[in-house]
Amino acid sequence: MNGAGNLMDFLDEPLPDVGTYEDFHTIDWLREKSRDTDRHRKITNRSKESIWEFVKSLLDAWSGWVVMLLIGLLSGTLAGVIDLAVDWMTDLKEGVCLSAFWYSHEQCCWTSNETTFADRDKCPQWQKWAELMTGHTEGAGAYVLNYFLYVLWALFFSFLAVSLVRVFAPYACGSGIPEIKTILSGFIIRGYLGKWTLLIKTVTLVLAVSSGLSLGKEGPLVHVACCCGNLFCSLFSKYSKNEGKRREVLSAAAAAGVSVAFGAPIGGVLFSLEEVSYYFPLKTLWRSFFAALVAAFTLRSINPFGNNRLVLFYVEYHTPWYMAELVPFILLGVFGGLWGTLFIRGNIAWCRRRKTTQLGKYPVLEVIVVTGITAILAFPNPYTRRSTSELISELFNDCGALESSQLCDYINNPNMSRPEDDIPDRPAGPGVYMALWQLALALIFKIVITIFTFGMKIPSGLFIPSMAVGAIAGRIVGIAVEQMAYHHHDWIIFKNWCRPGADCVTPGLYAMVGAAACLGGVTRMTVSLVVIMFELTGGLEYIVPLMAAAVTSKWVADAFGKEGIYEAHIRLNGYPYLDQDEFTHRTLATDVMRPRRNEPPLSVLTQDSTTVEDVETLIKETDYNGFPVVVSRESERLIGFVQRRDLILAIKNARQKQDGVVSNSVVYFTEDAPQLPASNPQPLKLRRILNLSPFTVTDHTPMETVVDIFRKLGLRQCLVTRSGRLLGIITKKDVLRHMAQMMNQDPESIMFN
Amino acid sequence: MNGAGNLMDFLDEPLPDVGTYEDFHTIDWLREKSRDTDRHRKITNRSKESIWEFVKSLLDAWSGWVVMLLIGLLSGTLAGVIDLAVDWMTDLKEGVCLSAFWYSHEQCCWTSNETTFADRDKCPQWQKWAELMTGHTEGAGAYVLNYFLYVLWALFFSFLAVSLVRVFAPYACGSGIPEIKTILSGFIIRGYLGKWTLLIKTVTLVLAVSSGLSLGKEGPLVHVACCCGNLFCSLFSKYSKNEGKRREVLSAAAAAGVSVAFGAPIGGVLFSLEEVSYYFPLKTLWRSFFAALVAAFTLRSINPFGNNRLVLFYVEYHTPWYMAELVPFILLGVFGGLWGTLFIRGNIAWCRRRKTTQLGKYPVLEVIVVTGITAILAFPNPYTRRSTSELISELFNDCGALESSQLCDYINNPNMSRPEDDIPDRPAGPGVYMALWQLALALIFKIVITIFTFGMKIPSGLFIPSMAVGAIAGRIVGIAVEQMAYHHHDWIIFKNWCRPGADCVTPGLYAMVGAAACLGGVTRMTVSLVVIMFELTGGLEYIVPLMAAAVTSKWVADAFGKEGIYEAHIRLNGYPYLDQDEFTHRTLATDVMRPRRNEPPLSVLTQDSTTVEDVETLIKETDYNGFPVVVSRESERLIGFVQRRDLILAIKNARQKQDGVVSNSVVYFTEDAPQLPASNPQPLKLRRILNLSPFTVTDHTPMETVVDIFRKLGLRQCLVTRSGRLLGIITKKDVLRHMAQMMNQDPESIMFN
Repeated sequence: MNGAGNLMDFLDEPLPDVGTYEDFHTIDWLREKSRDTDRHRKITNRSKESIWEFVKSLLDAWSGWVVMLLIGLLSGTLAGVIDLAVDWMTDLKEGVCLSAFWYSHEQCCWTSNETTFADRDKCPQWQKWAELMTGHTEGAGAYVLNYFLYVLWALFFSFLAVSLVRVFAPYACGSGIPEIKTILSGFIIRGYLGKWTLLIKTVTLVLAVSSGLSLGKEGPLVHVACCCGNLFCSLFSKYSKNEGKRREVLSAAAAAGVSVAFGAPIGGVLFSLEEVSYYFPLKTLWRSFFAALVAAFTLRSINPFGNNRLVLFYVEYHTPWYMAELVPFILLGVFGGLWGTLFIRGNIAWCRRRKTTQLGKYPVLEVIVVTGITAILAFPNPYTRRSTSELISELFNDCGALESSQLCDYINNPNMSRPEDDIPDRPAGPGVYMALWQLALALIFKIVITIFTFGMKIPSGLFIPSMAVGAIAGRIVGIAVEQMAYHHHDWIIFKNWCRPGADCVTPGLYAMVGAAACLGGVTRMTVSLVVIMFELTGGLEYIVPLMAAAVTSKWVADAFGKEGIYEAHIRLNGYPYLDQDEFTHRTLATDVMRPRRNEPPLSVLTQDSTTVEDVETLIKETDYNGFPVVVSRESERLIGFVQRRDLILAIKNARQKQDGVVSNSVVYFTEDAPQLPASNPQPLKLRRILNLSPFTVTDHTPMETVVDIFRKLGLRQCLVTRSGRLLGIITKKDVLRHMAQMMNQDPESIMFN
Repeated sequence: MNGAGNLMDFLDEPLPDVGTYEDFHTIDWLREKSRDTDRHRKITNRSKESIWEFVKSLLDAWSGWVVMLLIGLLSGTLAGVIDLAVDWMTDLKEGVCLSAFWYSHEQCCWTSNETTFADRDKCPQWQKWAELMTGHTEGAGAYVLNYFLYVLWALFFSFLAVSLVRVFAPYACGSGIPEIKTILSGFIIRGYLGKWTLLIKTVTLVLAVSSGLSLGKEGPLVHVACCCGNLFCSLFSKYSKNEGKRREVLSAAAAAGVSVAFGAPIGGVLFSLEEVSYYFPLKTLWRSFFAALVAAFTLRSINPFGNNRLVLFYVEYHTPWYMAELVPFILLGVFGGLWGTLFIRGNIAWCRRRKTTQLGKYPVLEVIVVTGITAILAFPNPYTRRSTSELISELFNDCGALESSQLCDYINNPNMSRPEDDIPDRPAGPGVYMALWQLALALIFKIVITIFTFGMKIPSGLFIPSMAVGAIAGRIVGIAVEQMAYHHHDWIIFKNWCRPGADCVTPGLYAMVGAAACLGGVTRMTVSLVVIMFELTGGLEYIVPLMAAAVTSKWVADAFGKEGIYEAHIRLNGYPYLDQDEFTHRTLATDVMRPRRNEPPLSVLTQDSTTVEDVETLIKETDYNGFPVVVSRESERLIGFVQRRDLILAIKNARQKQDGVVSNSVVYFTEDAPQLPASNPQPLKLRRILNLSPFTVTDHTPMETVVDIFRKLGLRQCLVTRSGRLLGIITKKDVLRHMAQMMNQDPESIMFN
């Protein structure tokens, strides 16, 4: 009961800053949880006292939902604004709307009355730069001028983006998902989710996407949503003062981010669960879902795509798929897996080069050069000139009767009688062959340039480029299968499946399957990927092809290396992230704990024989995060653990405020300090900063159990004992270093924890 | 390193049955996990030795997927067979198909050529019993005869069901979900998922549903799928010999069960995650999804509903919903919450009565009486006479132009011009008013009878009856709103929303929202519920109404008591289930541990001074599951923990096989037994059954942390120490008892663990 009393002391008069964390340190989940329970208990007790306290307790209980609502509203709004701005600025590279310069090409021609449906892309209000400047629309001169201005705009946008990132918010670069994974696992990176990062990331994301670089906005949107989450956490002390609770909100915010990126709320929740989150209790599941839905509906009411649809790529196919098509689908899965491996290896090698060589010192120049190359190579090819999401959208689409795309340039046989809605298979026309060539070139271009783009100092997601690679490959395969089916109706495989004149192959579906395979190969997402794709099509019909491709892609990619791109970047940056993979080596706690055999003994404090000076010397000479407290150096019986930070604060506080505490004062961790003669200096009682329930394991505990405990309970450190004697300590850093050693990898790459 | 050596000894020559569990005991998750890692390590090491071993290791790696495939195939098939059989037997209560007696009413009239579309329910091949026996189709005599035979068939079916359950498989009764939740949390109930249970549950489920009782097949289908999972586990030693791995398979099987129950694979996975599973790693998520998909597609290829649809209730609505409709939706949510509370309290009170009074001794009679009452009251009302799922289906449906249901008997105004597909609001005709009365009676009947039905000794699920209650209430509200909108176009709330002649209210949607609300109130499912409903409609459009109702219902129900029906039944039956709710009381490990202050000291073994006889006496006199081993009684320094079962087996084995081990032999738990004089009896070395890494906490550890550790690591027991001295022990039972005490509930209801 005494212990409880002491605990209460500590809570009733907390020292300022005791129990907070330093930057780049790991939080202690159990302590955070325990602090929240105490807070909750206090509020519940007080709520019986008066009506005002009762209302306050209700507000406290509802604050989680309020935060979710706010996150949904803000991230939905930001996503809508980003979509609109990207649309306008992407088109600005090619031309301008004369009736209102803030209209995108599509909006400009919507408002025009003079255009017919067939010519809906051409309206007099929309003028290309060459036309506006010289009056000519055709000819080599106009082409060169347009080309030049396209590259110039791209360079301008990307220069602006990288400069803003460099000057105002260095954390705004990249996709942010590796860092968010690390933060959610309990790491502290101050400012990573701050207001400046939010603002700058939103602005530079628009610039980066508009510049035509091979990057997407999905990963950064997750980061933006998490910044929103962090912003609203500061409204309620429940979340702002508790790092554990804050992470619950951030998990939900990540779901909202994916929800607005794809218009897939369920997929967003599963993405947060499967890919990003570390600690995901059921309460968070439910709140994530709420945040994701609010975000999706906010986005829909802004309606940036002008089609009243939630989803980014809405598709509807008319024909079912056939069993035999599983063969090309699985081949696409293999391609996706290979692409994933190639991308991860290439990108990591390049990023390592950037970190270790001179290259890393010129981030602005790097962005400018890559943008220049991208723009110069992209302009001549219509499939790379437009924005990547438009490209994917076109590749996913089925060729309907009204489709004007080059990809749908099939030869119509007027003699062939057919029902109205059913578009039978037809021989490909010259447009399709032309498109195939251009797509093949676009594929190679995208594969190469994406490897160099991801990881530059601008916001960059890789969902969209990965999907683009897959969609191009898929569409090419799809057209090939379709033409084969048309020209060889009599082949045994086509005989039962494809009657002449019937619509039996949907190349758009192949593009979708390819996109899922490539995205799966890079990120190793599985369920969330299939669910996102399922939400895009809205039908269970195509789940089997998608799943076949996603599974194949994951298996193929896993055969070359277990890590997805996010884990690879986490390792590259040396973040202390304990992943979910099982640790299967047969080592024991004694092999991992410090001190090792030849090292000096563990730095410990004794409960009643250390002086303030001793403690200060220990703090000065070591940089450990905390010190075990034992009964005496001889018995080595553990009684608790004290945090370095708390110790420093307590001594500083005592020296300032408590009379008689001098260097000679004895520090007591016992319940009662003995009555000392008056001549002795006043003792310093520090039991209230002592953690009386430190986590211990025996030296014989298998490391797989230790890893499991660290992962599931979110520990910072764990003490090792044998028959009640303190032997050593294992920190999260030791665990990570040991795991890396066991994988024969560079143990030094782990950031200091 | 010595520790590792000893561990190896233990693994290389395992005693038979060491490391298995007794019935009604809890498994030790950490130990199971560690055993699986060892097994995996062995296979990986061996796989490098020969090609055959390599192939074996591949097979081992793939066995999980094979099991999933088999579960999907079998549970899909069983669900299809159950659907077909229920269809036929439900109709058998009313009549028979003359052309082929094994056809259901619908199938019978499909094959008939003589019927028109309008008369599709009436065909000469299908004859009611009265018609067949007396030749009359109309009149009081025929009605009474049909009535009598309907009741008779119902009694026959339910008698057969309860007898089969009683005689062959007592575990086949009930929904099974509370028990499966408990099993998945680590409890052992032998035979609960056995072959007999599978067979009998499948057969009696058909009988119980066909008898017209107010119960559904969804919960039992989860049980059936889990039985399939358990069955296929026995094919692979990886799963059959490891209780932890087996539970991963069972989690996936539960997902497959819900997937076939509703045709909702994603909903099934989320149900397993949210409602049923305890330990749900990402690997299981992915495999569950696979099993759920295979099951759904197997069911679809059997096509029991004859509509090529996956889902049980496929609906498509034509009109959107309006903001103002949220008010009735939220009211339905409140109704759902109240119904949930009423149902849980009523049902638990009745079940407790059954357990504690004479009532429990006559399960057959109880079933007969309830069936009799149900059948007698159900026959006169057309909405209760038919099967509950047909009723729900009709209530969900929108009134299309071709609908012949009484619920769609609106007065058509021929003067009103309207487009073809758009069905404008119309005044209700006499049929609708009639239907409203009948529905109101059906609602009261369903509410009352379901409380008494759930928990009887036959398979019974409560998804369908709960949904029926909600759907009836919802449809009534829907029609009321619709008529209000028609008659009061000029009211301010309808003015902007409902132009005269427009189709603005969909009563079917209200039924669906009501069903979700009632199901949510009873089970407290949230995300999985919304996702299942979303999969039924296949559109994101209606997620907001569904969510509003589900959230309201959960909040209202939670205000009256936090427990859902499954948790309530778990507590009623005293299963040792540690639920996910947060423990917020301020108690410490020292308050919970045994021995208490006035109790005799903890029974411990010493490492080198206990004789075989002492151990045997200890085993005889106590019934603890295991004993801590200390250095000596004076120092109380803990060195390990030994399981009672292992101790008994080891001593028995030693006495039989090891010469010189007598009652006087000293039992050694140390690494090396000392060299004893020849006169002393041979010592018994038992270090290899000693768990050298028992879990310890200090006496100051807050109970919330202890609960968290038990829950997350799946412990059976945990030792309590202070400064390295062993003070006591906390078992899972102690934790549960303490939690129950803290909730002021009957602590004795927890089954002995």
